[in-house]
Amino acid sequence: MTSHRHLNTVPFVSVDHMMKLVLTVGIDIFLRELADVIEEDFRRWDTFDKTPRIASHSHDGVIELMPTSDGTLYGFKYVNGHPKNTRDGRQTVTAFGVLSDVGNGYPMLLSEMTILTALRTAATSAVAAKYLARKDARSMAVIGNGAQSEFQARAFKAILGVDTLRLFDIDSAASVRCQRNLEGLGFTIEICDSAELAVEGADIITTVTADKQCATILTDNMVGPGVHINAIGGDCPGKTELHRDILLRSYIFVEYPPQTRIEGEIQQLDDAHPVTELWQVMAGSASGRTSDGQITLFDSVGFAIEDFSALRYVRSKLEASGLYEDLDLLADPDEPRDLYGMLLRCEASLRAQPALAL
Amino acid sequence: MTSHRHLNTVPFVSVDHMMKLVLTVGIDIFLRELADVIEEDFRRWDTFDKTPRIASHSHDGVIELMPTSDGTLYGFKYVNGHPKNTRDGRQTVTAFGVLSDVGNGYPMLLSEMTILTALRTAATSAVAAKYLARKDARSMAVIGNGAQSEFQARAFKAILGVDTLRLFDIDSAASVRCQRNLEGLGFTIEICDSAELAVEGADIITTVTADKQCATILTDNMVGPGVHINAIGGDCPGKTELHRDILLRSYIFVEYPPQTRIEGEIQQLDDAHPVTELWQVMAGSASGRTSDGQITLFDSVGFAIEDFSALRYVRSKLEASGLYEDLDLLADPDEPRDLYGMLLRCEASLRAQPALAL
Repeated sequence: MTSHRHLNTVPFVSVDHMMKLVLTVGIDIFLRELADVIEEDFRRWDTFDKTPRIASHSHDGVIELMPTSDGTLYGFKYVNGHPKNTRDGRQTVTAFGVLSDVGNGYPMLLSEMTILTALRTAATSAVAAKYLARKDARSMAVIGNGAQSEFQARAFKAILGVDTLRLFDIDSAASVRCQRNLEGLGFTIEICDSAELAVEGADIITTVTADKQCATILTDNMVGPGVHINAIGGDCPGKTELHRDILLRSYIFVEYPPQTRIEGEIQQLDDAHPVTELWQVMAGSASGRTSDGQITLFDSVGFAIEDFSALRYVRSKLEASGLYEDLDLLADPDEPRDLYGMLLRCEASLRAQPALAL
Repeated sequence: MTSHRHLNTVPFVSVDHMMKLVLTVGIDIFLRELADVIEEDFRRWDTFDKTPRIASHSHDGVIELMPTSDGTLYGFKYVNGHPKNTRDGRQTVTAFGVLSDVGNGYPMLLSEMTILTALRTAATSAVAAKYLARKDARSMAVIGNGAQSEFQARAFKAILGVDTLRLFDIDSAASVRCQRNLEGLGFTIEICDSAELAVEGADIITTVTADKQCATILTDNMVGPGVHINAIGGDCPGKTELHRDILLRSYIFVEYPPQTRIEGEIQQLDDAHPVTELWQVMAGSASGRTSDGQITLFDSVGFAIEDFSALRYVRSKLEASGLYEDLDLLADPDEPRDLYGMLLRCEASLRAQPALAL
C-alpha cells in the first residue's frame, strides 16, 4: 500500500469505497468472510484488552467510543445512536473507525463504519445463531424492518441458509421496502400484521427496533420451545425489547457481561443471573444449544472486538482492491523532533507563492 | 460550509491545511486566540462531562482517547505517545480529533491534531502562567528542546511577553535547532551545558522531556523562590520529571485531579496532598500566585477540554479560510432507514459501468 511509503498518510475508506468494496467482493462472500474473522477473534477473546464502551448520553441520543486491542493492533469505533435523526433525513446510527499499529501508535486505516457496522452486526448475529439456533432452523421472524433488517436477513441466509422471513414493523411501509430490497435472492417473505403473527412458526426471532425506551416487542406467550431469539435492538440503558419473563425461561448468551449487564436485555435481571459468554461457546469451553426444546437468547449489544474484526477484515482487502484514498492525517517532518521547523518550511514555501498573502 | 448542504460529508483539516491555517492567521494571533478559547472553556468547567483519558498501554507506548462534551458539542482526540518512534523517522506523538453535534451525533469536523496539540499545549501552559508566574517574569528555562519546545517559547512570548530563553537538552543538536528555529523573533537565547545552568536566574522553568520513565530533570536545590514551574513532560504513569521534594515546596495547580493523580508529577505524592484546580483560578473561585516568593507548579498532563477548545477554535476558522476538504465519511441514503437500499442503488449504477465487473 502507498501508506507504507508515506509516513504522513493513512488509507481512508469512504462510504463510496466501502460500497464498492462490499459489492466487488459480493455481499454474501463479504458476510461469510467477515463472520470468519469475527469467529477467529472471538476464539482468541483472552488476548484482547476489553473495556465497556465509553458512552456520552444526551437527551436525544448517545455518542460512543469503542476501543480494543489485541496487543499488536488497536482499533476503535465512533458511533452515535439518535432515534429522532430520521425526522430530518439523517441516519439513526452513523459510525467510523480506526485501526492502528500498537508498536508505533500510527493509524493504519480510517474507515466509514455505518455500512460496515450494519454488516458486522448481521455477521455476528449469524455466527451466534450457528451455535445457538436449531440446526434445522430455516425460518426467521424479523420484528423491526429498519436499516439493519435486510443485513440480518442476508447474513442469516449466507451463513445459516435461512430462506423464510416473516416481517413486522409498526410502519408497514418499512416492511414493504424490506421485502422489495430482498427480492430475487431466493427468500420466501411474508409481511405480517402484528409481532404475534410474525413469530408464528418461526425458528428464529430477530428483534431489531430502534426506539430509545423500554418496550415489550415480545411478550412471554409469543415464544415457544426451541426458538432462538436474536435480540439486537436493546443496546443501551433504558432500551430493551423483551418481556422479563422471556429472559427467565431462556439460556442467555452475551458478548461481554460487564457491558451487557448495563446495556442489554439482562439489565432487567439482577447481576447474579447466569449468562454464558458467546466466545466460550465458540472456543469450546462452554455449551451452546444442548437440546431442541431450549429457548436460546443472544442478547446482543455490539462489542468493540466485532468492530476490530471488521476493520481488520477491510484492511486485508485494501491492497488488492485499491478501494481507498490516502489521507494527509499525520504530520511528517523531515526530522521527527522538528515539528515547528515543518511549519517554518511551509511558511517559506508559501511566501514564494504570491497568491497566498501571509 | 459545504458540509451544511451535504449530510454525508464531514469537513476535514489535513496537516497541510492546518499549517496553512496557522500561518494565514499568524502563529502569534493563533496562539492568543486559541488561549482565549481555552480560558473561556476553563471558566465554564462545570458544564463539561469529564472523564480521565482512556489509555491503552503497551511495551513501547500508549494510545489514548480523550472525549468530552459541553452538552452541545462533543469532541474527542486520538493521540499516541511512543518515545522510540523517532528512531525510524516517526513522531513520538501524533494525533487527530473529531468535533460532533450532540443533538444528532454527526461529526462536524475531523482534524489533524499533531500540530494542533502542540499549539494547544503551549497555549494552555501560557494561560496557566498568566495566573501563576510573577507578573514581571520575562525569562524562561526550557529543559528538553524537542518538538514541543519552540511552541512553548512562541506561546510564552505571544501571551506573556517572555523574551529570554535558556535552553538545555541532553542532545545539544536539539538546542541548536530550537535556537535557529526561533531566530528573528526578538528572543535573547542562551544554550546551556546543563539543566543547573539553564535554570539560573530563570523566572519560569519549563520541563518538556520525552523519556517514558521517572527521571529527575530538576532537583530540589535548582528551584529558587518565586519561580513558576511549567511541567509538561510528565504525563503518564511512571513518567515524571521533578524530584519529589520540589513538589512538597510548591503550590500545585492541575487540570483535572482524577487524571493528574495518575499521570502527573503528583503521582509521587499521596492522594490527599492538596492541589488547586486551574479552572477555579481562572473562574475566580481559587487563588493563583499570592506572593512573589511562592514556588508555583503547573503539573500539566493535557486534558480533553483543551482539545475540545482547539477543535472548536479551528472550526470557527473554516468558513472564512476555506482551508478544509469535504470527506465522504457518513452514509447518506435518500431514505434514512434504507441503508441497504443505498447499497443496491450503488450496485445498479456500477452494473451500468462495464469497467467494474461485479
